[in-house]
Amino acid sequence: MTDTVADKLAAAGATLPQAAAPVAAYVPTVLAGNMLYVSGQVSFVDGALMTGRLGETVSLEQGVIAARGCGLMLLAQVKAALGSLDRVERVVKLGAFINSAADFTDQPKVANGASELMITAFGEAGRHARSAVGVPVLPLGAAVEIDAVFAVRAV
Amino acid sequence: MTDTVADKLAAAGATLPQAAAPVAAYVPTVLAGNMLYVSGQVSFVDGALMTGRLGETVSLEQGVIAARGCGLMLLAQVKAALGSLDRVERVVKLGAFINSAADFTDQPKVANGASELMITAFGEAGRHARSAVGVPVLPLGAAVEIDAVFAVRAV
Amino acid sequence: MTDTVADKLAAAGATLPQAAAPVAAYVPTVLAGNMLYVSGQVSFVDGALMTGRLGETVSLEQGVIAARGCGLMLLAQVKAALGSLDRVERVVKLGAFINSAADFTDQPKVANGASELMITAFGEAGRHARSAVGVPVLPLGAAVEIDAVFAVRAV
Repeated sequence: MTDTVADKLAAAGATLPQAAAPVAAYVPTVLAGNMLYVSGQVSFVDGALMTGRLGETVSLEQGVIAARGCGLMLLAQVKAALGSLDRVERVVKLGAFINSAADFTDQPKVANGASELMITAFGEAGRHARSAVGVPVLPLGAAVEIDAVFAVRAV
Repeated sequence: MTDTVADKLAAAGATLPQAAAPVAAYVPTVLAGNMLYVSGQVSFVDGALMTGRLGETVSLEQGVIAARGCGLMLLAQVKAALGSLDRVERVVKLGAFINSAADFTDQPKVANGASELMITAFGEAGRHARSAVGVPVLPLGAAVEIDAVFAVRAV
Repeated sequence: MTDTVADKLAAAGATLPQAAAPVAAYVPTVLAGNMLYVSGQVSFVDGALMTGRLGETVSLEQGVIAARGCGLMLLAQVKAALGSLDRVERVVKLGAFINSAADFTDQPKVANGASELMITAFGEAGRHARSAVGVPVLPLGAAVEIDAVFAVRAV
């Protein structure tokens, strides 16, 4: 199956990871009608989980990389579910949860690591609605977790 | 109205509670097209709210029970809205918020209390996308809150 | 374009703010099919961001006003996207994140500031599903952030 989006990502130096198995009793994606719901993906970067808290042990720059790692894993799950990223019609919504110290308020800048990846991959169709909030802790101590909804073309 | 899912739950010893009234100015469910959005349900267990924080006053085992309580209340709301759980085509997405101490990182294991209930109730159709995050506090001091989206069959 | 909902809001003394530009690499709204996803809106009140934490520096009364400010901004984004609030068929879901001290448990009362605004604007069609949770910190130090999903009529 062709995948021009994957080619575009590769040209930008963005390599899709192996789609991670869920760490619990759920599945990575559910397709309901033409909407693909993707489970929250934690911040794997180059195969290792990036842990820690923004404003404490994780810098803003590292946080952006963590969020980009979540975004790459979201795309890896989409590709595993659909066969090709070319079936994505629109990135609809990202929900970003940032492991944050009580005085860290740059969640939007962190989440941009994933948001800008979506625009790299899909151009205008990558522009999405988003929420970004601080949380005190995430699964396995991850720095960032992001879930998503994508609109999908019929085959 | 027949309800073989409810029978299956009863056989597994899972009793649906009375659907709780919202604690504020909203409604328990909204059906939009064939998607049923269910409001966040807090952790009622045997009619009492389970309060407290994972990693402090609530053990992992109690947290799993709390999440299962949220799941039962989600199903009670679905049944109240649709008449029968048999109208559920797919559990699409759970959003789990776990009242967590800053060093508690087993949110996925806690949320499994609800996820496994969905599989008990619906089998393959119960397998859903999910996010699970830590939060510092929940309404009324609840240990767990979970919201959900279900895909529904036409009548 | 006529907008009887906007007239109703004005009659209730609720003035829509200028729709705020996103603070990062995303868009305020995405229309997917007939569902309008609106990005998380932080608590602007009379043009200024209301910052602080419920249970510390923000009173319950102020929190309600903050949530209403999020609700007004959600409606401003909907109007900017659709041309008229009269195209809203149903308010489907609000996701409320309340900047909360660890012992503040009245998130539902705070979120009512937005929920009641939806009922003022749309009557029965304004009754929505909702989740409301505490978070330790929000973008720019905001007191409240709320995202939303609306069902929209065809033109």
